[in-house]
Amino acid sequence: MRQPIRRRIFSLFATLFLMPVLPVLAEQRPGALPTYSVSPVGWVRKGGGKTWIEIEPRYQAALLGVEELSSLWVLYWFDRNDTPEKRAVLQVHPRGNPDNPLRGVFATRSPFRPNLIALSQVKLVAVRGNLIEIEGIDAFADTPVLDLKP
Amino acid sequence: MRQPIRRRIFSLFATLFLMPVLPVLAEQRPGALPTYSVSPVGWVRKGGGKTWIEIEPRYQAALLGVEELSSLWVLYWFDRNDTPEKRAVLQVHPRGNPDNPLRGVFATRSPFRPNLIALSQVKLVAVRGNLIEIEGIDAFADTPVLDLKP
Repeated sequence: MRQPIRRRIFSLFATLFLMPVLPVLAEQRPGALPTYSVSPVGWVRKGGGKTWIEIEPRYQAALLGVEELSSLWVLYWFDRNDTPEKRAVLQVHPRGNPDNPLRGVFATRSPFRPNLIALSQVKLVAVRGNLIEIEGIDAFADTPVLDLKP
Repeated sequence: MRQPIRRRIFSLFATLFLMPVLPVLAEQRPGALPTYSVSPVGWVRKGGGKTWIEIEPRYQAALLGVEELSSLWVLYWFDRNDTPEKRAVLQVHPRGNPDNPLRGVFATRSPFRPNLIALSQVKLVAVRGNLIEIEGIDAFADTPVLDLKP
């Protein structure tokens, strides 16, 4: 049965009126968490048995004084796991060994985690311009680096 | 003077042919860095002289085993500094004291940095459900927490 014409006109206007509000409603639904954006400040590079961090030239000024440190915290991004499926993994068998009992990813250093931030303390060998030679990072070549801290 | 018709047809086809390629060219321009997205997995809460982390219920499964730890690395977001201006600060006087010589933010723990990730090692007091009581974090109440690591 067709709706009376006045009801159809009312529905049309109600929809037009609500349209600008709908994205706001969507953002405020209970399930929505804010998102923040991060970008690489540099990259892990490897070659000739050496490892270094190449800082993006635009961030080189942020290195002033880093050469005085003997070690450095490196925060980097597990970019190979940046899929919704991998970021939804909440429990793992540590070190990928099924004999290890399941643990929550917050109790492990697993590269599967909701926010793919990795943390390593590395030895600082030398700083030359925007290149920082380091020792002791378990990261693939060309991994995006997010932050350095003393 | 109008262009010859054959040239106008060529331009039209050249434009149509290039259109799908243009976003790729834009992404590869020298100035563009990739961006990655992070969201809170919980929040720093304070009250009655106590501090705890409230984990979002959807991430509670990631806490399995955390209760066995005595300390925890907490990664959180300096959300009060999330403006392009503050994220562009590359050098600071440490501890905001102009008597301290300028240092690059990567040589300091400054809350001004390109990626607003903070790092603290905290003492774990107790875990109850999705609440983790901690000691020793220098973060405002309701600060977004990004990650926990052993």
